[in-house]
Amino acid sequence: MSADEHVDLTVADLHPALGDPALTSMNFLNEVSERYPAAVSLAAGRPYEEFFDLAAVHRHLDTFHRHLVDDLGHPPEQALRLLLQYGRTKGIVHHLIARNLAVDEGITVDPEDVVVTVGCQEAMFLVLRALRAGPTDVLLAVAPTYVGLTGAARLVDLPVWPVAGGPTGIDLADLAAQVRRARAAGLRPRACYVMPDFANPSGVSIDTAHRRRLLDLAAREDLLLLEDNPYGLFHSDDGPRPPTLKALDTGRRVVYLGSFAKTVLPGVRVGYVVADQRVAGPDGRVGPLADQLAMIKSMVTVNTSPIAQAVIGGRLLEHGCSLVAANTRERSAYTRNLRHLVAGLTRRFPDQPDRPDGPAVRWTVPAGGFFVVVTVPFPVDDALLDRSARDYGVLWTPMAHFYDDSAPVCALRLSVSAVTPEQIDVGLDRLAVLITDELVRRTG
Amino acid sequence: MSADEHVDLTVADLHPALGDPALTSMNFLNEVSERYPAAVSLAAGRPYEEFFDLAAVHRHLDTFHRHLVDDLGHPPEQALRLLLQYGRTKGIVHHLIARNLAVDEGITVDPEDVVVTVGCQEAMFLVLRALRAGPTDVLLAVAPTYVGLTGAARLVDLPVWPVAGGPTGIDLADLAAQVRRARAAGLRPRACYVMPDFANPSGVSIDTAHRRRLLDLAAREDLLLLEDNPYGLFHSDDGPRPPTLKALDTGRRVVYLGSFAKTVLPGVRVGYVVADQRVAGPDGRVGPLADQLAMIKSMVTVNTSPIAQAVIGGRLLEHGCSLVAANTRERSAYTRNLRHLVAGLTRRFPDQPDRPDGPAVRWTVPAGGFFVVVTVPFPVDDALLDRSARDYGVLWTPMAHFYDDSAPVCALRLSVSAVTPEQIDVGLDRLAVLITDELVRRTG
Repeated sequence: MSADEHVDLTVADLHPALGDPALTSMNFLNEVSERYPAAVSLAAGRPYEEFFDLAAVHRHLDTFHRHLVDDLGHPPEQALRLLLQYGRTKGIVHHLIARNLAVDEGITVDPEDVVVTVGCQEAMFLVLRALRAGPTDVLLAVAPTYVGLTGAARLVDLPVWPVAGGPTGIDLADLAAQVRRARAAGLRPRACYVMPDFANPSGVSIDTAHRRRLLDLAAREDLLLLEDNPYGLFHSDDGPRPPTLKALDTGRRVVYLGSFAKTVLPGVRVGYVVADQRVAGPDGRVGPLADQLAMIKSMVTVNTSPIAQAVIGGRLLEHGCSLVAANTRERSAYTRNLRHLVAGLTRRFPDQPDRPDGPAVRWTVPAGGFFVVVTVPFPVDDALLDRSARDYGVLWTPMAHFYDDSAPVCALRLSVSAVTPEQIDVGLDRLAVLITDELVRRTG
Repeated sequence: MSADEHVDLTVADLHPALGDPALTSMNFLNEVSERYPAAVSLAAGRPYEEFFDLAAVHRHLDTFHRHLVDDLGHPPEQALRLLLQYGRTKGIVHHLIARNLAVDEGITVDPEDVVVTVGCQEAMFLVLRALRAGPTDVLLAVAPTYVGLTGAARLVDLPVWPVAGGPTGIDLADLAAQVRRARAAGLRPRACYVMPDFANPSGVSIDTAHRRRLLDLAAREDLLLLEDNPYGLFHSDDGPRPPTLKALDTGRRVVYLGSFAKTVLPGVRVGYVVADQRVAGPDGRVGPLADQLAMIKSMVTVNTSPIAQAVIGGRLLEHGCSLVAANTRERSAYTRNLRHLVAGLTRRFPDQPDRPDGPAVRWTVPAGGFFVVVTVPFPVDDALLDRSARDYGVLWTPMAHFYDDSAPVCALRLSVSAVTPEQIDVGLDRLAVLITDELVRRTG
């Protein structure tokens, strides 16, 4: 564009979120990966692509259509209407989602408490929009935090207060302290956002005893918990999975955010929220929070594409509503990749000089999920990522993007989800050279 | 539910939009139609269902897939990734939308200025979220106003100021007066929302000369226009359609909101926005408003389901990107229904007593679209609708729902889009009895 081009608006004329790093950082990360398409990407948290299958999409759609007619007894024209016309704001696969939660998670859910959403992102957005009633409201979130949560909060003018994550997944003393601090400042903490299983980006999981303590604290402090669970199925050991917070929730403290992006397909853009909290209206009528979220949804996206929902519905039906069963191959691939990545890091950083503060390069060894965090003895910023992509041919994500301030962070996130073991090898070779060069450059 | 049920929250704890008639009225209308499924519905603005075809959905998906491989030259794995993986926030059918706008509307659009959205509702939401920067911002909208616009504005805390519609579709003197009034009050009118073709709910269209005057006024007052055009293709005469505001827009004054719900299928939930306004960032970089909307979208729905987009893309490709060509049958059905409804009203209210203020029952005769407004000599409220559904078996929409205040309105909206001529006859018979009963009850 020319320098003297006529400008119609400036970003300063628009909503403040648009100048905010929470929104622009996602953009930056996408731009880098588009600029260097030949780089090996250990950045994207995208699901594995080897099993993508367009024929399965067609089949799922037909399976769900048959379900409407054969199982639910809809006349043909009504089944067609359900798939192709405007429809129920809360969705048409809610009964199958409830069944899936019973089968895979042991959660008992009234299908009326489910809102099917345009991906989990819309579920988060709806919940935050509902909870942000005024300028004294704040949201607590385990830091480092998924950037989509921070971005959605920005759009509804809801400040996000970080709560220390730490090795247990959530520092409960810090959570209690933040709640007290907020209340002392005249603020109203509405909820605490947490990803208990293989969190993005930390990879850390919360153990069952700590989950119970978190629920106790939430009850004591009268706090909602927003449980986001996109990775829970992808554990790499064969032991039992810990129960979700929602499965342990006897007091309707937990709003459960569900995603099918990793367990079915990102391209359907279907997620959901379970919101069984009872809400009293001004007329005294009581209904689930889900109904309030649906009212918001009707003004954001009207309803989730029933065609997209049908793809999810068909996939669920074809696997007895179990996504554990549906993801056997995917789970193996992620487990294989995670082990390959950790072994590859160990091989490439084998004998680090003993230092009082531990080895120069360390990494997490999560029991599942997509992400490994590598800590290095220098700040990892966007400039380094840009150089890594351009000069070394490898992409990853600076952990700084997941903190809601500008403090330097000496860590980066690697994702194992959308690569082959061969690509992991190439990526790690390049990353090792980058880190070594950087260590030499900075120390020597 | 029991009277002593434990309540977790009250609506007063949530965002104020949730207690607002703009959101609850849509809910009420849906509830009424669900409660009386046997009633003939002249209420819903849903598209005609006779031509719904699931096989066509499968075919469109495959057509677009072939287009990715054969026309755009994507390798098979890349084509699959585009359809099933996370993808471009602004969408993957933008080039076909640009072609469609060229073919059908004579609008030249850079595909980079298009954001594909989850229905037109999300397009509206994104634009309002972007434009509402602070508490002094207001939106102008032609009254009566589509309730989805008012609801979206509530969600972003943006007040909507009504502008008189009147017989020309928009009263320009009133628009100028409202702009001045807002500015005098220290407020910033961000844009004026208008549906120039067969507006919902009024059915009124703006003629070409008046469109030009509106654009002149917008330039003079430095105002954006939000042009919403879901019904433009459904004109019932054979004359030329008036150009859209966007086709006449030489100064990037118009943000164009597009819908495929009526021209392809509601169940795909795909719409779009053309936002070619040039926006300068804090770093001096200039890009289209579309890029800012995409940043917001990335935190609301991430991207529009590429599977749903593919259905639209396939349909466009199969008709040379012309939705005029694709909707020949639909257009005939709407035209037939509109004429049948107007003739039916004339037959049922033939010889009304001469009154100084005109006939007791009058109706609009639009040149296309879905809606006819019937004016009666008594206020039309929700209680009457409820009685109409229960005792008379006919549904329609009180025009009061489209005004952003509680003043009584003596009119109702009839929709011809989702019914057969036979259903129109039954519906009008019932409506005529209701109106006659009501006239008798009130006068005698």
